[in-house]
Amino acid sequence: MEEECKIPLNTGLRGVTIANTRICEVDGKNGRLIYRGYMIQDLAKASYEEVAYLLLYEHLPAAEELKGFHTQLAAERAIPPELVAALKTRPPKALPMDVLQAAVPMLAHHDPDIAEYSREAAQRMAHRLIAKFPTVVAAWHRIRSGKDPVAPSPEFGHAANFLYMLNGRTPDETATRAIDTALVLHAEHAFNASTFAAREVASTQAHMYAAVSAGVGSLSGALHGGANAKVMQMLLRLGSADKVADFVNAELDAGRRIFGLGHAVYDVDDPRAHIIASMSKTLGEGVGNPRWYEMSTLIEKTAKEIFRKRKNADIPVNVDFYSASLYYYLGIPVDLFPLVFAIARVAGWTAHIIEEQFAGAALKPVLYRPESDYIGDYCGPEVCEFVPLEKR
Amino acid sequence: MEEECKIPLNTGLRGVTIANTRICEVDGKNGRLIYRGYMIQDLAKASYEEVAYLLLYEHLPAAEELKGFHTQLAAERAIPPELVAALKTRPPKALPMDVLQAAVPMLAHHDPDIAEYSREAAQRMAHRLIAKFPTVVAAWHRIRSGKDPVAPSPEFGHAANFLYMLNGRTPDETATRAIDTALVLHAEHAFNASTFAAREVASTQAHMYAAVSAGVGSLSGALHGGANAKVMQMLLRLGSADKVADFVNAELDAGRRIFGLGHAVYDVDDPRAHIIASMSKTLGEGVGNPRWYEMSTLIEKTAKEIFRKRKNADIPVNVDFYSASLYYYLGIPVDLFPLVFAIARVAGWTAHIIEEQFAGAALKPVLYRPESDYIGDYCGPEVCEFVPLEKR
Repeated sequence: MEEECKIPLNTGLRGVTIANTRICEVDGKNGRLIYRGYMIQDLAKASYEEVAYLLLYEHLPAAEELKGFHTQLAAERAIPPELVAALKTRPPKALPMDVLQAAVPMLAHHDPDIAEYSREAAQRMAHRLIAKFPTVVAAWHRIRSGKDPVAPSPEFGHAANFLYMLNGRTPDETATRAIDTALVLHAEHAFNASTFAAREVASTQAHMYAAVSAGVGSLSGALHGGANAKVMQMLLRLGSADKVADFVNAELDAGRRIFGLGHAVYDVDDPRAHIIASMSKTLGEGVGNPRWYEMSTLIEKTAKEIFRKRKNADIPVNVDFYSASLYYYLGIPVDLFPLVFAIARVAGWTAHIIEEQFAGAALKPVLYRPESDYIGDYCGPEVCEFVPLEKR
Repeated sequence: MEEECKIPLNTGLRGVTIANTRICEVDGKNGRLIYRGYMIQDLAKASYEEVAYLLLYEHLPAAEELKGFHTQLAAERAIPPELVAALKTRPPKALPMDVLQAAVPMLAHHDPDIAEYSREAAQRMAHRLIAKFPTVVAAWHRIRSGKDPVAPSPEFGHAANFLYMLNGRTPDETATRAIDTALVLHAEHAFNASTFAAREVASTQAHMYAAVSAGVGSLSGALHGGANAKVMQMLLRLGSADKVADFVNAELDAGRRIFGLGHAVYDVDDPRAHIIASMSKTLGEGVGNPRWYEMSTLIEKTAKEIFRKRKNADIPVNVDFYSASLYYYLGIPVDLFPLVFAIARVAGWTAHIIEEQFAGAALKPVLYRPESDYIGDYCGPEVCEFVPLEKR
């Protein structure tokens, strides 16, 4: 057994480095985010397909490679009619993340590669999952709204096709660009909680669907993928900018956190937040309703001022904060915000699962199996004496 | 940030203590397994309901408490007709663990407590999950076999009711006792991979179904819950005792591991293995076919002799090894073996999820968010220069 290393217990492994990765660097001190060597600010100019390709294949695709990848993804977008039938059995009020978490292992039921444990099979499964995630989400939203699902169209890119299937109409260029960039920005973030869950499941040699479904489950938590919806609920509850100052003061007075502010890893502003904020501004002005964007900037400014005054500290803004108004402007229902996150992050999850299972000698992962310290002093330091039922 | 603690990277957190727990001690050096203060050898005399109650409520139930718990579980055994309808859309060849992983979030769609984040709601959800797991598994097996599901019967205890729903007939006392004890022995095992996955998901404040579904996904891996089925496949492939010696020699010569031998945590024999082995012996003799039990003992003996001779080391036998023949004697289909594991372990998972989310001050868990070390040297030590698509 390895020499023991004392880490702080019950602190979620914060600050503890547990593995190497070639996929992503989150440099929280300097506010830098890098996927496979590239700065996020540069990747924000690329499409989601380019970035998914980069994550899976370790280089940005040349034009021909991208064309081939687009064709493959487009061919895999449709979901089996049996899955649509299963979705139709679900109660319309089901939490959408729970529907997605169930849909992923149901997709496994139809995958011809499911019993093959190899890098190539895992890559094919990754393509299918990336391609089908938007279709599942859009189909469920249509079904729960009493409408028929809209079949995917190979005419559109990945991002535009999602909006098309969701709303049943062709999105304009500004909307397409905004959702495409949002997907790029959310595609990957190192060992965040959902990716860690996916890698943990993958380490048992479970297949990609089992691991991705666990990622969806982890992302569904209020402290993770649920945060962007919480931000929008806050904006809607406030309703107008004149309520902001009182609200922020009251929340911070009560010691509550404001969703979208603060981050587990970033000490400075999340580099993605500024890119998202500027798109939210453009879209808000475009629809002649900058309110949600403006309220967001005001909340950020007010909270930062209070933090500086009271604690002489900065509170960084994170990616969820401006995603909220952006998705709202795009007409995406608030309870689907975490699903947009999932549609993006599935590229990162699948890349990490492949790294966990099939990386070369430099990264040799094994089944995650940490130790715990038993403090169950039910009978003092002794083992409890067992009393049979009839004598209890 | 905490002071940095260097742990060995990419080794699955082996030997690294990450949390306190009051639920379970696995003392691998001495081959001791303790749930909430009680030795597993003592708990093997109790029923699964008693042990599930102990795991959830921290004491063994008195007669009245047990009666109330049984009544509650029995009332929660039925699954919604909408879930049966969803199961009927699934291809009969779907991997059964994938069906269970999908069924768990589908159960969430019908839970009235789903939006409530409290210990009391989590306990109610735990009851429902424990009660419904056998029903889901039995229903799926009947449906894939072209039969109607058998409704649960409140007449039976938890274990007997599972066999009843699976086979459509009342199990005898020996079979009931064997499956009941097997469920007790598999109910809990500290921070094993599936429990760790469930806790990880729970740490995001995701609800119990999201976390349990992740546990099922983790358990589906060949290195975890899949091992008992692999043991049986080995026995069936060999077919008779005279093949054992050559097989074991060939496997160990080739450096392959034999499923059911060796363990991540135990240095000595798994204390559960001997209890299971003796039940397998009884059942095998009872049906006049001790072959599978006898082959198992011969494989164990042969492998241990070779290990001692070649490596001067012991190879411990683990719980999966004798579970295989036991479940086979009980008439459970081999591909459902990991699901029996899940039916047992859901008590442990739910206890851990409640501890993760609602433990008192002594155990203060936070979102799991480890660090990783980025070794992506795609452009040497520099960030890569972004080249737009048209110039690649």
